[in-house]
Amino acid sequence: MKKHDVVAVGAAIVDIIARVDDSTVASVDLPKGAMSLVDAAQSARIYDNLSNTIERSGGSAANTIAALGALGRDAAFIGKRRDDAFGDVFASDIRATGAHFESEPSTSGEETARCVIMVTPDAERTMATYLGISGDLMPDDVDAETVGGSAILYLEGYLWDKPHAKDAFRRAMALAHESGRRVALTLSDPFCVDRHRDSFREIVKSETDILFANEAELLSLYETDDFDAAVEMVSTEVAISAITRSEKGAVIISADERIVVPAEPVATLVDTTGAGDLFAAGFLNGISAHQPLQVCGKMGCAAASVVIQLLGARCPDALRAKFAIKGWS
Amino acid sequence: MKKHDVVAVGAAIVDIIARVDDSTVASVDLPKGAMSLVDAAQSARIYDNLSNTIERSGGSAANTIAALGALGRDAAFIGKRRDDAFGDVFASDIRATGAHFESEPSTSGEETARCVIMVTPDAERTMATYLGISGDLMPDDVDAETVGGSAILYLEGYLWDKPHAKDAFRRAMALAHESGRRVALTLSDPFCVDRHRDSFREIVKSETDILFANEAELLSLYETDDFDAAVEMVSTEVAISAITRSEKGAVIISADERIVVPAEPVATLVDTTGAGDLFAAGFLNGISAHQPLQVCGKMGCAAASVVIQLLGARCPDALRAKFAIKGWS
Repeated sequence: MKKHDVVAVGAAIVDIIARVDDSTVASVDLPKGAMSLVDAAQSARIYDNLSNTIERSGGSAANTIAALGALGRDAAFIGKRRDDAFGDVFASDIRATGAHFESEPSTSGEETARCVIMVTPDAERTMATYLGISGDLMPDDVDAETVGGSAILYLEGYLWDKPHAKDAFRRAMALAHESGRRVALTLSDPFCVDRHRDSFREIVKSETDILFANEAELLSLYETDDFDAAVEMVSTEVAISAITRSEKGAVIISADERIVVPAEPVATLVDTTGAGDLFAAGFLNGISAHQPLQVCGKMGCAAASVVIQLLGARCPDALRAKFAIKGWS
Repeated sequence: MKKHDVVAVGAAIVDIIARVDDSTVASVDLPKGAMSLVDAAQSARIYDNLSNTIERSGGSAANTIAALGALGRDAAFIGKRRDDAFGDVFASDIRATGAHFESEPSTSGEETARCVIMVTPDAERTMATYLGISGDLMPDDVDAETVGGSAILYLEGYLWDKPHAKDAFRRAMALAHESGRRVALTLSDPFCVDRHRDSFREIVKSETDILFANEAELLSLYETDDFDAAVEMVSTEVAISAITRSEKGAVIISADERIVVPAEPVATLVDTTGAGDLFAAGFLNGISAHQPLQVCGKMGCAAASVVIQLLGARCPDALRAKFAIKGWS
C-alpha cells in the first residue's frame, strides 16, 4: 500500500537569478547578502529592473523532491501555486524530473511565489522572496491518501512562519504517524530556528524520525556553542540526524553511531544555493534504497557537491549522471 | 504523415566538465584552448586524474534536439552509443527532455563518446574528445521512416570527418528530399569547414534548405574576409541562412531579406559551450511553429543567451522557463 518513497510538503517557488553589480543591489534598497520578504509589487519592480535573468524552479523541499525524482525514486510534492506563468514553470519543471505533483493550480488568491536572487561579483547573493500563494497552504491541501501512503514525509521549516501552513504540517505529521510512516524535517535556516525554537524543539523530539540541519541550525536549536553537546542532545531525541558542516562534510547521528562523512573536493564553488536540499535528496535516496547510513551520507555529500558547482538549485541531469557513474541506484 | 518536427543525425557524446588550474592542463600535454581528439586510453587517463567533475550529456546536434524537446517540439535524435554507463547517461538525459531517441545501444565496438572539458581560471577551455562509437554511424543506422516522416532533417558538420558517417549523412539527405522534407545543416567549426570545404560547398548549394553557421565558418566556407560578400554568396545558394555573430547577435538571410537580430544583453558570460546549438534550437522552434524569420531569430538569440550564462550545453528547465515567461510557444 506504499504509494511513494517520499512526499514533501513545502513552498512552490520559482527562482529568478541575475548577475548584477553592487549598484543594482543598492538601488533596490535591500540588505546585501540577506533574504528579505517582499510583496508582489516590490518583487515585480525588482524583476523589471533586471536586464537579463535565468528563471529556474526552486523551493527548498521542492528541490529535494525534484532531485529524488531525477534519481528515479517515486517522489511527490504538495504545495500551492497560481494559474500563472510562474506556476506553469514550477509544475512543468518538477514533473519533468519524474516527480509527482498532482494538485491543480489555484484560480484565485496571490500569485505564484518567486525569489529574485541577485548575485554580485563577490559571489554574495541578495534575495527578495515573494511568498505569494505558497504560504497559503491549508490543512485541506494535504492529501491524506498521498501522505498516508508514502514511506517518508518530508517537511521544510521555512513554512512554519505561516499559521495555516503550520496547521497543514501538523496534520501531515499526524497522518504519517497514524499510517506508521516516518517523518523527516529540515530546519531550513538558523533565523527560522530562532523564530520558532520552542515549537521546533517540540516537533524534533516528539514527531521527527529523520532530522536534517546544518551546524548553525543545530547549535541554535539547542542554544549552545558546543557542537559535541548538541550532537549528544539530538542523539537522545531523534532516531537519525544528518548534520551538514559545509567543507567538513556531514555527521550522521543515531542512538549508537556517529558517522563522519567527508565532503567531496570541489575545485570551484559557484553557488551554494540548494546544497542542503540536495544533501537531503541524496541521503533520502539512500534511505529509500535501504542503504547503510554511511552510504546514505556519501550519497548526500555527492549530490551536494554537484549542485554547488552549478548555478541554481536544480541539476537533474548532472545529478543523474554522477550517481550512474558512481554505480549507485 | 509527419512524424516529428525535427530529426537530427549526430554524435552521442557525454561531456565531463572540470574546473582546473593551468598545471593540470599542462600535465596532460594537450594544447590549451583547443579541441584535441584522443583515444579511449588517453581519455580515461585524463578523466581519472581529475578530482571533481560534472557530467552532462552533450554533442552539438544532440544539444539542439534536447532543447527542442524541452520546448515541447516533437524532436528525435539518431546517433550511436554503447551499452555502458555513459551511453545510459546520454540516453536518459535526451529522453528526459521529451525528445525521442529510439535506437538500442550497441553491444560491441568502441565505448560511448565523451569529451573532457577542462576550464581554467581564465575561462578558457581545453577539450579532449574521444569520439568512440559515435563516429561509427553507418548508413543503415539512419531509419528511413523517421527521416522521411520528419519535417526537418538536421545535420552537424562534425561527423563529416568520418567516412561511414558521411555516407550516413548522404543517405539521410536523400531520404529527406525524396519525401519533400527540408534539410538543415550546421557547419559546426571553422576547422571542420577548412578540412571539408569542397564537399561542404557542394552540399550547402545543392542539399541545404536551412544553413546555420557562425561568422568565422561562413567566411571560411567562401574563403573571403568580406562578411557582406559571404552573405551575398549564401543568399543565392540557400533558401534560409542563420549566421550568428556572438555579441552582435545574428543575421537571417533569405533571397530577398537580411534581418539583423540583436543579441540579448548578458551580464556574465559563464560558458559559451552550446551557444550555437541552442541558437539553432530556438530558431528551428520558431520555424516549426510557423513564425516569421524575425521571430525565429529572436527565439534563437534568447535560447543562446540562456545557455551561455550556465555551465554546459543542456539547460532544459531554464530554457523552458525563459520561453514560457516571454509567452512563446
